[in-house]
Amino acid sequence: MQQPVVSCSMPAEEIESVSLPVGWKSYRSPEGRKYYVNTSTKVNGHQLHGASGHVLEHPDVFLRKTSLSNQSPGSTSPARRQNKEKEIKETKITINCVTFPVPTSAPEQQLLKPSEWSYCDYFWADKRDPQGATVSGFEVLLQKQLKGKQMQKEMAEFIRERIKIEEEYAKNLSKLSMFPMAAQEEGTLGEAWAQLKKSLADEAEVHLKFSSKLQSEVEKPLLTFRGDNFKKDMKKYDHHIADLRKQLVSRYAAVEKARKALADRQKDLEVKTQQLEIKLSNKTEEDIKKARRKSTQAGDDLMRCVDLYNQAQSKWFEEMVTTSLELERLEVERLETIQQLLRQYTTLRHETDMFNQSTMEPVDQLLQSVDPAKDRELWVKEHKTGDLRPVDMDI
Amino acid sequence: MQQPVVSCSMPAEEIESVSLPVGWKSYRSPEGRKYYVNTSTKVNGHQLHGASGHVLEHPDVFLRKTSLSNQSPGSTSPARRQNKEKEIKETKITINCVTFPVPTSAPEQQLLKPSEWSYCDYFWADKRDPQGATVSGFEVLLQKQLKGKQMQKEMAEFIRERIKIEEEYAKNLSKLSMFPMAAQEEGTLGEAWAQLKKSLADEAEVHLKFSSKLQSEVEKPLLTFRGDNFKKDMKKYDHHIADLRKQLVSRYAAVEKARKALADRQKDLEVKTQQLEIKLSNKTEEDIKKARRKSTQAGDDLMRCVDLYNQAQSKWFEEMVTTSLELERLEVERLETIQQLLRQYTTLRHETDMFNQSTMEPVDQLLQSVDPAKDRELWVKEHKTGDLRPVDMDI
Repeated sequence: MQQPVVSCSMPAEEIESVSLPVGWKSYRSPEGRKYYVNTSTKVNGHQLHGASGHVLEHPDVFLRKTSLSNQSPGSTSPARRQNKEKEIKETKITINCVTFPVPTSAPEQQLLKPSEWSYCDYFWADKRDPQGATVSGFEVLLQKQLKGKQMQKEMAEFIRERIKIEEEYAKNLSKLSMFPMAAQEEGTLGEAWAQLKKSLADEAEVHLKFSSKLQSEVEKPLLTFRGDNFKKDMKKYDHHIADLRKQLVSRYAAVEKARKALADRQKDLEVKTQQLEIKLSNKTEEDIKKARRKSTQAGDDLMRCVDLYNQAQSKWFEEMVTTSLELERLEVERLETIQQLLRQYTTLRHETDMFNQSTMEPVDQLLQSVDPAKDRELWVKEHKTGDLRPVDMDI
Repeated sequence: MQQPVVSCSMPAEEIESVSLPVGWKSYRSPEGRKYYVNTSTKVNGHQLHGASGHVLEHPDVFLRKTSLSNQSPGSTSPARRQNKEKEIKETKITINCVTFPVPTSAPEQQLLKPSEWSYCDYFWADKRDPQGATVSGFEVLLQKQLKGKQMQKEMAEFIRERIKIEEEYAKNLSKLSMFPMAAQEEGTLGEAWAQLKKSLADEAEVHLKFSSKLQSEVEKPLLTFRGDNFKKDMKKYDHHIADLRKQLVSRYAAVEKARKALADRQKDLEVKTQQLEIKLSNKTEEDIKKARRKSTQAGDDLMRCVDLYNQAQSKWFEEMVTTSLELERLEVERLETIQQLLRQYTTLRHETDMFNQSTMEPVDQLLQSVDPAKDRELWVKEHKTGDLRPVDMDI
């Protein structure tokens, strides 16, 4: 994995930055990464790099307060260092291998995207789930996206059930419209009645059309607008971020190991120095120089480990911001897509009611035309038996 | 049964009537019955009455052509009478005991209710049904009314089936609206989705209301607007008219019997007269007078029987007109009632579609208010893990 270590011989653009501790400067690397450099410290020819940067969609400036000692840890006496470290340690805290400022000491930490309640601002810490297991903030974001996919699936099921109800209704109306009740009614009333019965078949058509459009314009899109790739993508993000956390964990372990080794070396040096002073042993100056050399080396090792740790944390930080913003975008897209599809649902419902109303028009017209006199004429013409009236019999 | 015999000593109003044969006058009796009187014929002190009248809702004048001999049948010689009868018999014909003019001899018979295709004009004759049985015109009219009752029953069944379909639909929508699909969706999208689900329960309400009104405002009236009394009334009419036809049949039988008796008497007289002239037997003038007297009596009997027959036919005629007009009125009423009830059906359908549309309004509103930013804020506030960003570790 590429380490964002930048040696000071690389071309870099120095940028103005307020509130940096004395001796520190901020630069932007050619890739656009911001980082901070302590120009006054030189240890073994290497610059100390407390570099951290991130790639944001828009050029927010973020301020980080750091409090780093500006001297090699190995070159001062443990006693003096201890005092300073006490001051230093109180401003930061490492939880689950992630290093945070102690809240009271970082009042100026502004949100990356103020007023937006952005995912990239609120999910840095881990939390405990109800079972007591540790869950990263990123996990919470990921679970939301997976739940969103579940939601759209359930919405599609709901629509499917509606479709089935509509098809059942249409089938029943259609069947009834063909029943022969009062089929023998004739004339204008017979016509109106026949049309009324037919209107049920028309209504059935309307509801079938509704269910068909529900299927193609609402249900299907709900099912498919996040394809199967979605879950794969989520898995990819999950693993990637998890891997970066794992790296952080191993680098933190290295730091702790180096810190212990340094402490051991410093203890050894102190003991040997004391012994020399009270001429307790036959240790020579040579021995002390060796001990001091080992101590300094241990100090260098520690600095290197801390540096590697900070690099790993920066990398994780960058990916967190990038990925959480992507998840945020996906969530906006999900809401907007669902909104649009549900609007389509209500549009189809409106349409359906209007089409349904129109099935009544021909019935209304024929009912208006019902004419008892006309029907009597029709019927009498067909069924009359004789129009000659009886007359008296003759004798 | 009251016989419409009016003696000429009763007060009667003579009314003008065109096209009556010579010697006939038309009168209106106090009850309002029109009848015709032959003022020139006196037989045994009784007027001949070829009276027929009817009660019509409005004062139509109807013309009846009669051709009656204006002499007692018993007083002329059989030979002369036979010639005249031959002429007379060709103008009338008795079918199933009902006497009609022979069509070619009654060109002026105008309809009682011209241009109306009224029942009272077209159902005088009997007909044969497909099985060959004789069916009276009145029967045909009655059957139509009974069939109409069957029609309204079948229409009510149709509506009942529609009601069941609506209730099923409503039940399904109601159930679905309570399914927990995507119940975990939160924020503005969650609200819109919840309202969409609820709208199914609202739609169910609309359809339940529809089915309920269908039941009370269409189905029930269709079932009950002709009560059970209707069938009883129809039976009453049926029996009443049938009884009058039966009377006619028996009176016709009497006429035929009297006619035969007269023929026998006349034959006897003729034979006796011939015998006197050729002095064939020792019959005296006394015997001939007796034979003549019997002949005259037989003639009187015949006239009485014909008169009774004509009264019976008039009665039947009146009742036919009255009752067929009532059936006609009932049929108009049936059509108008059904028209109104079916219009109520279409009104309810219109209403239902409108109410159904309105269930979408709150859904549309909430969908409009879907706000990804707001939802993110809500969710982040609830689920954030920490907003302190990591910082570099110090040495």
